[in-house]
Amino acid sequence: MAITLQELLNRLRENRRYAALRDIFTAMNEADTAALFDELPEAELPVMFRLLPKDLASDVFAHMESDSQELLIKGFSDAELKEVLDELYVDDTADLIEEMPANVVKRILANTEPEKRNVINEILKYPEDSAGSLMTIEYISLRPKMSVSEAIKRIRRTITDTETIYTCYVTDDNRHLLGYISLRTLLLAKPDSLISDIMEDTVICVHTSDDKEDVAKKMSHYSFVAIPVVDAENRLVGIVTFDDAIDVMQDEATEDIKMMAAIAPNEESYFKTSDFKHARTRIVWLLILMLSAAITGGIISGYEASFSAVPMLVSFIPMLMGTGGNCGSQSSTLVIRGMAIDEIKPGDFFKVIWVEFRVSLLLSTALALINGLRILIMYRDPMLALVISLSIVGIVIMSEMIGCILPMLAKRLHCDPAVMAAPLITTIVDACSILIYFNIACHLMVIG
Amino acid sequence: MAITLQELLNRLRENRRYAALRDIFTAMNEADTAALFDELPEAELPVMFRLLPKDLASDVFAHMESDSQELLIKGFSDAELKEVLDELYVDDTADLIEEMPANVVKRILANTEPEKRNVINEILKYPEDSAGSLMTIEYISLRPKMSVSEAIKRIRRTITDTETIYTCYVTDDNRHLLGYISLRTLLLAKPDSLISDIMEDTVICVHTSDDKEDVAKKMSHYSFVAIPVVDAENRLVGIVTFDDAIDVMQDEATEDIKMMAAIAPNEESYFKTSDFKHARTRIVWLLILMLSAAITGGIISGYEASFSAVPMLVSFIPMLMGTGGNCGSQSSTLVIRGMAIDEIKPGDFFKVIWVEFRVSLLLSTALALINGLRILIMYRDPMLALVISLSIVGIVIMSEMIGCILPMLAKRLHCDPAVMAAPLITTIVDACSILIYFNIACHLMVIG
Repeated sequence: MAITLQELLNRLRENRRYAALRDIFTAMNEADTAALFDELPEAELPVMFRLLPKDLASDVFAHMESDSQELLIKGFSDAELKEVLDELYVDDTADLIEEMPANVVKRILANTEPEKRNVINEILKYPEDSAGSLMTIEYISLRPKMSVSEAIKRIRRTITDTETIYTCYVTDDNRHLLGYISLRTLLLAKPDSLISDIMEDTVICVHTSDDKEDVAKKMSHYSFVAIPVVDAENRLVGIVTFDDAIDVMQDEATEDIKMMAAIAPNEESYFKTSDFKHARTRIVWLLILMLSAAITGGIISGYEASFSAVPMLVSFIPMLMGTGGNCGSQSSTLVIRGMAIDEIKPGDFFKVIWVEFRVSLLLSTALALINGLRILIMYRDPMLALVISLSIVGIVIMSEMIGCILPMLAKRLHCDPAVMAAPLITTIVDACSILIYFNIACHLMVIG
Repeated sequence: MAITLQELLNRLRENRRYAALRDIFTAMNEADTAALFDELPEAELPVMFRLLPKDLASDVFAHMESDSQELLIKGFSDAELKEVLDELYVDDTADLIEEMPANVVKRILANTEPEKRNVINEILKYPEDSAGSLMTIEYISLRPKMSVSEAIKRIRRTITDTETIYTCYVTDDNRHLLGYISLRTLLLAKPDSLISDIMEDTVICVHTSDDKEDVAKKMSHYSFVAIPVVDAENRLVGIVTFDDAIDVMQDEATEDIKMMAAIAPNEESYFKTSDFKHARTRIVWLLILMLSAAITGGIISGYEASFSAVPMLVSFIPMLMGTGGNCGSQSSTLVIRGMAIDEIKPGDFFKVIWVEFRVSLLLSTALALINGLRILIMYRDPMLALVISLSIVGIVIMSEMIGCILPMLAKRLHCDPAVMAAPLITTIVDACSILIYFNIACHLMVIG
């Protein structure tokens, strides 16, 4: 391309080709327009946004990043703000409020219709990671005594206000969830059939207080486009749609991956995070791990006599510590991810230990043989080869055991298993590796 | 619970309460029945499966794990196999064939209708990780000149054969994709409107050869329930539905997490993997990393004179190597995940390096100060404190740089950046850390 889309838009704007710009925006998907707007310089954004046709503006707004949303709201007149807010779904408005600073929140609430404001306040009361905070209250509910043709009429009437119409929920007069019916079934059914006769009466739902990760897992298990959310009295209060579930899954995977690398969770994106915030999310664990590594150093000091006698011993420290750390992080990672995707269940404690033990026997034997041979060839010292090989066997078995047990223990103590990931495991394993190594060396080499 | 669901089912079966069992299965969601069946002992599975009502059997079958599917197929008569296969969606059948051993595949193809067999063969020709291998060919296509009422009639007619009816695709006579229209829009529109007037004509689609990870990302970006797949001539050949996209995202996250811990990819679940396979997925990297660690050992040997003179130096090796490794794995993890979720784009090479450099300045200053102070208090040796603090500064900056540059280089060389994750980075950083440390020590302490 000779010129980027961004440049084209700038040129059109400079030349005041507003009609052309409006046509381009109308032709684009709102998610793409939003992504484009997020990249605009601050001064350009409000100008461009005002070019959007009214019915598209709130869709694009909902897709934008919170920084850009804040910037826009600050520039909006109250009338403009109200126009955008009126078209936003309740769950998007609640998300928006959660991201904005206090003074912006006040303006948003002041420009929201009272009825909608009450609903938003309800949603905001749910804990941050719960199904309640994720749900939308705009869904289609039907009554069991309705006929199919009545149901379809009702759907046509409420269609514009709801995020998904493809699953409808059947409730009694007290809003208790009785079952669900897909639009597909409705379209296939005879017009005079009763909803109660053709609905699915296996009620699969989540509670407002359920963790959002479990909600996403449940939706993926059942391949649902949406899942109903009920309160403590089993009354339908909202639904969670699949697009939110996908976001939750991505965010949880990102959080787990970061935790596994000893980085504190941070919801902002890489480039939006300030240097100090970047440093803050990393320094805590670095410090903890650095000071714990000093313990390993202390253990080494205790064997000063040994390595003063045989200085060669020191040069094997990186390899032995490294192998221990790698084995530990392999088994801890497998166990942590296995638990996250429910492949490994809490009852599998001893089953996992037994698997890891057998695997560690295989691994340690192979690694010890290869390394023993290498040392025998390179140094022609059978005793040294024996010491290193035996150390590898001990270290590999020990690290695989620690690597699988600690995350499962963390889970039992209701901590996130991912805190027991590679870096912490490595530090613990390091100390144990040194102990195993120098003990074997001292006993076999008659030193120290 | 006094008795588990599994136990209840066993009891009912032993007492031959087949009607009750059938009622239970009918009341359950097929995904749950499948999960339950996967846990059954081999001998029980075929008996239980035959109790399923015919119309439910293939739905449950599609949800089961491949081991159980294989077991069932081997026990099926040809008539039974045909009955299940006839009801399976084409993409589920293709998935099944990919998982089964050759002799089972032969029986499956022999019992599939010729027309369906041709389609399956087409799907199987696409590369394993492509959109083509993921798609289903059962979708609803409309013509631009149809009226809304004709379209709805057509949807009602084809509804049972298609996986999703909520987005319909508009094609010309040569199957070129012209646009799409949601069922929602159709239900809202006047019956005599023309499809071409009300359809969305922004065509957002993927190509058969696109990587399935990109397909999932695109669907999540647009919050699509389904995305159309076109061939090289821009003809519509299938669609990918959101449930497959969710699976792809989960699998990719799992694969990345495993790679980051130096474990080779393996599609089987934790407990289904044999000990030898477990060992095989781990040993290659362990060996590579172990032998590279020997290089670090070699470097240490070169400084034997230094630590013979000041044995205390050895005890700081774990802390310095550990800190370097942790810094390197933090920045590599952030960069790898950032690239995986498109927060960091290929053009951001120098931008990332600049961020990491500034962050590493902050981190190294903090860590060096804290550690210098600790050593000053514990050992009352200002020179030792200076050597360690300076080493930390050098090591932290060096590791953060290596940690962010290597994954981005890998991406540029079209390798998976995740191979440059923690374990490899750690091994490279270890060697550099030792060099920095002993060089500073030799210069300042006038030893060696």
